[in-house]
Amino acid sequence: MRVERLESAPGYAFGGRAAALTVPPGTVVELSTEDCFGGAVRGVADLPSQVCQFPYLNPVTGPIAVEGAEPGDTIAVHFVDIRPVRDWAVSSTFPHFGALTTTHTTAMLHDALPERVWLYDVDVERGVCRFNARASEFTVELPLDPMHGTVGVAPAAGEVIMSITPGAHGGNMDTPEMRAGTTAYFGVNVPGGLVGIGDGHCRQGEGEVCGTAVEAAMSTVVIVDLIKATACPWPRLENDDYLMSTGSARPLEDAFRISQHDLVGWTGELLDLDSLDAYQLVSQAGLAPVGNVVDTNYTMLAKLPKSLLGTSAYDGIHDRLRSSASRYLAER
Amino acid sequence: MRVERLESAPGYAFGGRAAALTVPPGTVVELSTEDCFGGAVRGVADLPSQVCQFPYLNPVTGPIAVEGAEPGDTIAVHFVDIRPVRDWAVSSTFPHFGALTTTHTTAMLHDALPERVWLYDVDVERGVCRFNARASEFTVELPLDPMHGTVGVAPAAGEVIMSITPGAHGGNMDTPEMRAGTTAYFGVNVPGGLVGIGDGHCRQGEGEVCGTAVEAAMSTVVIVDLIKATACPWPRLENDDYLMSTGSARPLEDAFRISQHDLVGWTGELLDLDSLDAYQLVSQAGLAPVGNVVDTNYTMLAKLPKSLLGTSAYDGIHDRLRSSASRYLAER
Amino acid sequence: MRVERLESAPGYAFGGRAAALTVPPGTVVELSTEDCFGGAVRGVADLPSQVCQFPYLNPVTGPIAVEGAEPGDTIAVHFVDIRPVRDWAVSSTFPHFGALTTTHTTAMLHDALPERVWLYDVDVERGVCRFNARASEFTVELPLDPMHGTVGVAPAAGEVIMSITPGAHGGNMDTPEMRAGTTAYFGVNVPGGLVGIGDGHCRQGEGEVCGTAVEAAMSTVVIVDLIKATACPWPRLENDDYLMSTGSARPLEDAFRISQHDLVGWTGELLDLDSLDAYQLVSQAGLAPVGNVVDTNYTMLAKLPKSLLGTSAYDGIHDRLRSSASRYLAER
Amino acid sequence: MRVERLESAPGYAFGGRAAALTVPPGTVVELSTEDCFGGAVRGVADLPSQVCQFPYLNPVTGPIAVEGAEPGDTIAVHFVDIRPVRDWAVSSTFPHFGALTTTHTTAMLHDALPERVWLYDVDVERGVCRFNARASEFTVELPLDPMHGTVGVAPAAGEVIMSITPGAHGGNMDTPEMRAGTTAYFGVNVPGGLVGIGDGHCRQGEGEVCGTAVEAAMSTVVIVDLIKATACPWPRLENDDYLMSTGSARPLEDAFRISQHDLVGWTGELLDLDSLDAYQLVSQAGLAPVGNVVDTNYTMLAKLPKSLLGTSAYDGIHDRLRSSASRYLAER
Repeated sequence: MRVERLESAPGYAFGGRAAALTVPPGTVVELSTEDCFGGAVRGVADLPSQVCQFPYLNPVTGPIAVEGAEPGDTIAVHFVDIRPVRDWAVSSTFPHFGALTTTHTTAMLHDALPERVWLYDVDVERGVCRFNARASEFTVELPLDPMHGTVGVAPAAGEVIMSITPGAHGGNMDTPEMRAGTTAYFGVNVPGGLVGIGDGHCRQGEGEVCGTAVEAAMSTVVIVDLIKATACPWPRLENDDYLMSTGSARPLEDAFRISQHDLVGWTGELLDLDSLDAYQLVSQAGLAPVGNVVDTNYTMLAKLPKSLLGTSAYDGIHDRLRSSASRYLAER
Repeated sequence: MRVERLESAPGYAFGGRAAALTVPPGTVVELSTEDCFGGAVRGVADLPSQVCQFPYLNPVTGPIAVEGAEPGDTIAVHFVDIRPVRDWAVSSTFPHFGALTTTHTTAMLHDALPERVWLYDVDVERGVCRFNARASEFTVELPLDPMHGTVGVAPAAGEVIMSITPGAHGGNMDTPEMRAGTTAYFGVNVPGGLVGIGDGHCRQGEGEVCGTAVEAAMSTVVIVDLIKATACPWPRLENDDYLMSTGSARPLEDAFRISQHDLVGWTGELLDLDSLDAYQLVSQAGLAPVGNVVDTNYTMLAKLPKSLLGTSAYDGIHDRLRSSASRYLAER
Repeated sequence: MRVERLESAPGYAFGGRAAALTVPPGTVVELSTEDCFGGAVRGVADLPSQVCQFPYLNPVTGPIAVEGAEPGDTIAVHFVDIRPVRDWAVSSTFPHFGALTTTHTTAMLHDALPERVWLYDVDVERGVCRFNARASEFTVELPLDPMHGTVGVAPAAGEVIMSITPGAHGGNMDTPEMRAGTTAYFGVNVPGGLVGIGDGHCRQGEGEVCGTAVEAAMSTVVIVDLIKATACPWPRLENDDYLMSTGSARPLEDAFRISQHDLVGWTGELLDLDSLDAYQLVSQAGLAPVGNVVDTNYTMLAKLPKSLLGTSAYDGIHDRLRSSASRYLAER
Repeated sequence: MRVERLESAPGYAFGGRAAALTVPPGTVVELSTEDCFGGAVRGVADLPSQVCQFPYLNPVTGPIAVEGAEPGDTIAVHFVDIRPVRDWAVSSTFPHFGALTTTHTTAMLHDALPERVWLYDVDVERGVCRFNARASEFTVELPLDPMHGTVGVAPAAGEVIMSITPGAHGGNMDTPEMRAGTTAYFGVNVPGGLVGIGDGHCRQGEGEVCGTAVEAAMSTVVIVDLIKATACPWPRLENDDYLMSTGSARPLEDAFRISQHDLVGWTGELLDLDSLDAYQLVSQAGLAPVGNVVDTNYTMLAKLPKSLLGTSAYDGIHDRLRSSASRYLAER
């Protein structure tokens, strides 16, 4: 098992950068990521709008080129381990950002909501992070559920897209499903694919309603792999229990439509169903959790239990990656 | 424990009808509901557009008036039992209805998708229903998870709203959370509240993507109760594990905003948090599953684990209703 | 020429009311309408949220039944004259209402914008109304362009819909095109059709952005007429220069789609074009102004110049109504 | 008066390219642009999906750098003349593109609508273009109203955005207001600003409903000028009669909100009104035509008659550019 390390300078976009690391398919990559504030918010007095500078937000580590990856192929990114590196994490409101505030696009005449920072205590051993209210003494522990908000590849058509935007190339989808044990699939748009990873969260609710999660620098291990001659129009995820399609767009029903349309097509292929039969099966057996409703595109997931399939996606690559991950973790 | 039965003639709207049954708070009501097709679709050759007649779709049983209910109060409807009454159920596509088709509002120049009916085999004892593909031999069993798509009260402002429309009065929210063991809360708009229940589903996926679920006539038991002098602006749900707010609107992000806004306010009240602290807590701990993305309004849910609260909603009414339900079931 | 007068008690909904006046097709009806505040806002100190009471807003005069109108027919309402009856008019912001504010559906954590009333001086002779800023000395005259925000018929399916909601039955479309010289067409849903008219505006911008126009009581004259055996799925308008289709829905692109879809179909029928050719012609020659982006549904118009047609809609009924109107005005 | 010519190789994005021409403020630039198909569609048998290759669509000429332009400044692009260079033009449907069809984001299970090309006869002398139906003998002349669908500058944050996408940097707004006699204002994001121009239309309807206009190569003359130390958050337009703000986003109501919010702010600055007074004035006096409802973002305009202002925007630059344009045209 080949293992590489990556501690590159951060980027703030997908596309427009040369590979920081080039690896053959199947390589384990150990990497580190800063939080979405670039580590500049370290306490409740550090207001993001003052200590961060646009567009230097949401840094991504990478890009990682996969040898042999060509447009028309699909890259698999399997998350082996995601571990917060500090004993604290932060969240905040941010002016004109969030689901329940006027923004620059849902533009209104209100002043921005107040900017407030929350400092969470993180205890990796016990698997919890502690929310401390700012305006009262209330405090409560929440389970750790580490994940990456931002994972993607270089976009098509030569575009360079801010890391905060989710789309067909992945990016800032902000779904809690992007946790250890999950394999994410991305269609390749440029030679090497150019995978970037960032925006670690100790946990987040579905929707990332206030605009930020429990933001943390992470020590993360992935295996990158390659599926040749198979296109993947929108990012897909797979864990031991579910196949998942994603859609990122506005309005939110279009994100929903994209994800459901993709899952119907995927299900149809796997079960050899025509599109109406697949539509029916997904309609009765599928789940539809929100990713985010705050970013420049909104993200929805469409999930189907693998127990229905009796077959495996992409020739069982997820199971093989799970095995490799186990081996790596046992040997580490 | 007072127990009443209701087998009234069906209605097709919320509002505009006199009570079919009037009961004191705390009454158990045993009722029966027809499926959304009024029972007219009984096999794969019964195309809904031919055997059903607009607007005689989605019948609701009721309305049930609760004695003493006045505008400004909240009615609680606790689902004790929901049981399919036949050994079959149906689902279908319907012209210009569904999430992945042109509709009369998302109006396009395409012809309607084909209309197709699926007949499910229902086995209540084994807790499964069987999907049979129409264009191939594929078949698979899905777990039964009986629920009601349509539950609500008479709307405000004297409106009479088709039963197919979800809104602030409840109605056709089409969320799988409306299962036995759940308490639903509705703000009262007219004396008696006037509860209607219909649209039983053997199960449905989140989103009800193709427009219909596994539609079935049900034998259902509820307890209706009353919370005086407490308004409920949008329907809320509670089960043993979660508080849930709903929002029904278009576009889907507005349904999301309504539900999250309500959950933030509810959480703030229960935990004595200011709105920013409540916003933060919901952002990190909440879930956001889709109800439907097919009806005349779309429905989203916002869920918070009750384990965080250390306090109970509405003075513990859900626990009391659970106890009453257990007693009823034991004595039945 | 038959002329009737109508000064009925106001209603606040479409549907659910018996006819206040029944007339044969072709009748001139002279009627009066109160402003959307029911006349309760008479100066800048009269805040609508204090002097008005939900749901007694946006009164409509009527309903007027047209003899012989049956479902499947279309009623034509030709506006002969719309005249402000006072030398003042009012506009206001209203809490949680408007396009650039948090509302109950686009729900956010902001406080409502301030409620403010503007009193306009109206000079019918000179054809102007004067805007007076509240926070400065700025003042400017705007041209009078009197119109009705709310015109419609009883909805289908027995629904009773608040007068503030626009839809397939018409209602509160709030388009400045509803001025004297325009003929509005509505599909009949119930015997008699049951036309209601209200919400006079001295003028309004497209979008009615702040939520209210220059609101005024009106003395209005219409001719109501009947087109048998011709359905009209969404309200249509015609003036001397344009055919116009309307759509009322959310999100705004669905209102756009409905209106364009209807105009493409209408154009195709009139010119005997297939749907792609009609789509192409409307794409290059059509206009698409906004009606409102504030009401419970948003309204878009799709307009095509009649100069392209070389044929007339509905057998030339608009021209005949224009002639009747001229005759009435000459004789008055 | 300095006059430059530009016949550069086409680009397909905003951002990511070096200047093809650098000019001082006030320079007249004579340039040529190919049509959105790159000239590859020359008859009804040339289906775009066959003769064009993604992403080589919608070429833009440029970029033009303006000397001294820095982030925080605003570039003015005044359109002096826009002239079709051929005696024909084309329009088409395109699979999965358009307002009344399933697309890759409003994803549905329908097959794409048929792809069809229309060839227009263009007569610049007579000022008309002729529509010829494909499925019948119908034909009609439409007035020429030449304009550019795509005008913009390099975006912020180092992004490289396909030329087909409209946004805060301009781009493919597809509004018929971008005609000769109009001045367009763009906020500068990078040194020089880097103006690109393309996508000439002989005319288009509001909304560009089918996805393409009457597409033509153009011979165009602009004057580029610079307003120092004045930011312009979204593109603005000015002609002799109107100030116009634009917004490009999804859903369409957000495009509407952006444009109205900007116009309210602009009006407030020019007339020294507080935001509520400006909101009121725009609400009663503004127009709101659609730009496009087909591109990757939708575009709305908000227009206010300059007759209300009694003052001029940006120190009267539009009038000066009009004078320069007259001088140029007289001398040409």
